[in-house]
Amino acid sequence: MQQQISVITLGVSDLARSRKFYVAGFGWAPVFENAEVVFYQMNGLMLGTWLEAALAKDSQRPNQTKPGAFSIAHNVPTREDLQKTLNTLALCGGRILRMADDPPHGGTRGYVADPDDHAWEIAWNPAWKIDAQGHVTFGI
Amino acid sequence: MQQQISVITLGVSDLARSRKFYVAGFGWAPVFENAEVVFYQMNGLMLGTWLEAALAKDSQRPNQTKPGAFSIAHNVPTREDLQKTLNTLALCGGRILRMADDPPHGGTRGYVADPDDHAWEIAWNPAWKIDAQGHVTFGI
Repeated sequence: MQQQISVITLGVSDLARSRKFYVAGFGWAPVFENAEVVFYQMNGLMLGTWLEAALAKDSQRPNQTKPGAFSIAHNVPTREDLQKTLNTLALCGGRILRMADDPPHGGTRGYVADPDDHAWEIAWNPAWKIDAQGHVTFGI
Repeated sequence: MQQQISVITLGVSDLARSRKFYVAGFGWAPVFENAEVVFYQMNGLMLGTWLEAALAKDSQRPNQTKPGAFSIAHNVPTREDLQKTLNTLALCGGRILRMADDPPHGGTRGYVADPDDHAWEIAWNPAWKIDAQGHVTFGI
C-alpha cells in the first residue's frame, strides 16, 4: 500500500481558539472551514481541526482523552527561528512544554501544546531535507 | 511559516507489535529503526513510532494518556480496498472501531485502532487528488 497519510485530525473544543493558534501563531491559511471543522493544506496532506465530539462520534470512540501519547513536528529553517516560533505560539494560546535545547540524536527542538493540549515539536534538523513545497525527506 | 508537518510521532509500548501492524498490515517499509524508534518515510513527512516513555521524556509530558483525541487518515485508491484494508489491519494487531460506511460529508470510511490504541481512519474519497508520490490535495 502507498506510504501515505492524507489527514491528521485533531479534536478541538473551541474552533476559534484553535484557529488563532494555527493562523496567528503558525501563520497558516485554512483551505476550508465551516462550523465544525477547519482544514489546512499542508505538505501533501491535510491538517484538520474538528470538534472533538464530532470526531468521537465519527470514529465511534467516545472515550478519547487528552493529552494523547503522540506529537506532531514542524521543522523550522534555522536554529534561530526555533525559540522565536515557540514564543509566538505561546502568545497565541499555546503552552510551552519544553524550551528549545539539543537532544542527543542531533538538531535542536522544543515542544509547545496547542490550546487543546496536543503536543507540537518545533525542530531544527539540518540532516532532513525540506523542499520548497515542504516535503520532508529522512536523513541522518 | 511554511505549512509543513515533518513528523507524526506515535507513542508505542512494544515496538515489534507496532511494527507488525505497520509493516505487515499496511505493507509499509521502515526507512530507519533502532531499539526505541521506527521511522517510515511517508508522502513528504515521516511517521515515527517511538517508545512511549521516551516520547514522554522528550516532550516533558509525563501525563500522556490513550486513546488520544485525534486520528490519522490513510486514503485507499478504490472503495473496494477499504473494508479489505480494515480487515488486514485487524489481522495484524489492529482493532476495528467502525466498519466502512458512508458519512454525510461524502466518500466512504472506517476506523481501526493500532495496537497502541491510536485511531486510523481508512478512507476512500474521490474528491481528493492523490499523486504518485502520495501527496494529497484538498477537494470538495
